[in-house]
Amino acid sequence: MSAVHAQRHNTLMEDPYPTRLATPAERSWLPRQEEILRGPEEGPLTSEQREEFRQKGYVFIPGFLDDDELAEYQRELDTLLAREDYRDQDFTITEPSSNDIRSIFAMHFLSAKFGQLAQSPKLVKSVEQLIGEDVYVMQGRINYKPGFEGKGFDWHSDFETWHAEDGMPRMNAISASIVLTDNHEFNGPLMLIPGSHEKFVPCIGETPEDNYKSSLKKQEAGVPSREALAELVAEHGIEAPKGRAGGLLLFDCNTLHGSNANMSPDARSNIFFVFNRRDNALDTPFAAKKQRPDFLAHTPDGRWRDLTL
Amino acid sequence: MSAVHAQRHNTLMEDPYPTRLATPAERSWLPRQEEILRGPEEGPLTSEQREEFRQKGYVFIPGFLDDDELAEYQRELDTLLAREDYRDQDFTITEPSSNDIRSIFAMHFLSAKFGQLAQSPKLVKSVEQLIGEDVYVMQGRINYKPGFEGKGFDWHSDFETWHAEDGMPRMNAISASIVLTDNHEFNGPLMLIPGSHEKFVPCIGETPEDNYKSSLKKQEAGVPSREALAELVAEHGIEAPKGRAGGLLLFDCNTLHGSNANMSPDARSNIFFVFNRRDNALDTPFAAKKQRPDFLAHTPDGRWRDLTL
Repeated sequence: MSAVHAQRHNTLMEDPYPTRLATPAERSWLPRQEEILRGPEEGPLTSEQREEFRQKGYVFIPGFLDDDELAEYQRELDTLLAREDYRDQDFTITEPSSNDIRSIFAMHFLSAKFGQLAQSPKLVKSVEQLIGEDVYVMQGRINYKPGFEGKGFDWHSDFETWHAEDGMPRMNAISASIVLTDNHEFNGPLMLIPGSHEKFVPCIGETPEDNYKSSLKKQEAGVPSREALAELVAEHGIEAPKGRAGGLLLFDCNTLHGSNANMSPDARSNIFFVFNRRDNALDTPFAAKKQRPDFLAHTPDGRWRDLTL
Repeated sequence: MSAVHAQRHNTLMEDPYPTRLATPAERSWLPRQEEILRGPEEGPLTSEQREEFRQKGYVFIPGFLDDDELAEYQRELDTLLAREDYRDQDFTITEPSSNDIRSIFAMHFLSAKFGQLAQSPKLVKSVEQLIGEDVYVMQGRINYKPGFEGKGFDWHSDFETWHAEDGMPRMNAISASIVLTDNHEFNGPLMLIPGSHEKFVPCIGETPEDNYKSSLKKQEAGVPSREALAELVAEHGIEAPKGRAGGLLLFDCNTLHGSNANMSPDARSNIFFVFNRRDNALDTPFAAKKQRPDFLAHTPDGRWRDLTL
């Protein structure tokens, strides 16, 4: 944490999640302060699914989309990926070699269909059963990777980044990933360390300026030490939920996750939303000089930007 | 193939396995000329294991080493990796950041124990049951990767490289990998395309000079096209044999294989031998200007080099 921000936050309270440290921490992890389950039992999720989330920090719900919905969102994804006028926008990530679009952020503002999905009761109520009611979409994106493409992503906690770089105060957020393609052993499925959501791993190394420009491709700051990872994997193991297209993966903001490269010919695509509690809105970053751009981190009530595309 | 070498080989016969082409081939693969099984039925391998190899182009034999042998070879590996005087040798691959040794080639010349293993009847007889009698060790190496290290390796056929860059005439060789650590889903086990040993995939792109200096880390020439890979995976699928330390994986020189990164804390190490038939000794490369150095590709009867280490 830079001195000026440390001072700012410390006038209010001690930060329970110090990170981007100049020197290694004494302990490899710090205990989570927030309860895991804070929402109502009633809703789309069964009590077994809620309990699985509580214990593991994630739950996979097969068949969240039916076949018609799946086809509809796959078409909508294709439509957005084909938008020539999106290629040079800051909210779009393109392949360096081909300039093909690989990710589009804030797509729930760009597409009415994805906007409706972000607000659909079966999604929002599921999320609220876990972290509590009154949530908003802090980030949304679609991802597409053709077969044999897509490098892996090293182990990390999203909360660590959001806390350090976006100013998220507490572990009150959840990621919802809806897979539009089958996930199997060889196409680089998401791997998670179950139980890691209970442990905050402070990371070493101060945040470089405009870190997001490279960190969306490969993370350099905010990487847990190998020692901490080894300790957590020794205790909790690694899991990679697999399943048919249309499944929903809900995972806690602090669950350590990563992925490997896609070694198969099968394309991978998904819809991704981060839900945050309104009482946990982003403020001054805890360990970066300025907040990241708003296509990465929305405010609870602000519209995004005037799009005159 | 460079014009001069094409001419040289064509005076004898047409090369059935043209590769490193300047322009894409008409067909994504060419049929294999050699029989798969040419050795005696009698030996350490069961007829089921031979049949599995014939069909898939590989067979995994659990418990090839017993616990005492396993411990003995693990110690021998540690001894070689600790040799300060090996660090700056051409036959040693070190980690750029730490200068730690990650691979040692020709270790069966450097270590009496590994030399004996290379000649042990249970290994040699197994190999000879598959490709026929009278074989020699064309390449040997040990590999060591700590947890969370070890990038993946893209799909490739070893025969394609040996044919193009070492002058191996025919598909008369087999790789034997003895795993000294457990293989599981998350530590980057070898993946294979079963049945791909029957199909030679010509690769596009001429061989750069001294290609081996970079290709041992990441292959640029000798990479099958994504279209060819997609076609083969669609027909044959992907398999990743997993199992306890001490297992032996035998795979045909033309079986397409690759691997993903090690996402686990578990180190990976193995002993690796390539057995070639004496009647298939290396000659002029089929698609490179000169042969690769002898630590990578030994001759049938020559000792390696005078080591005054």
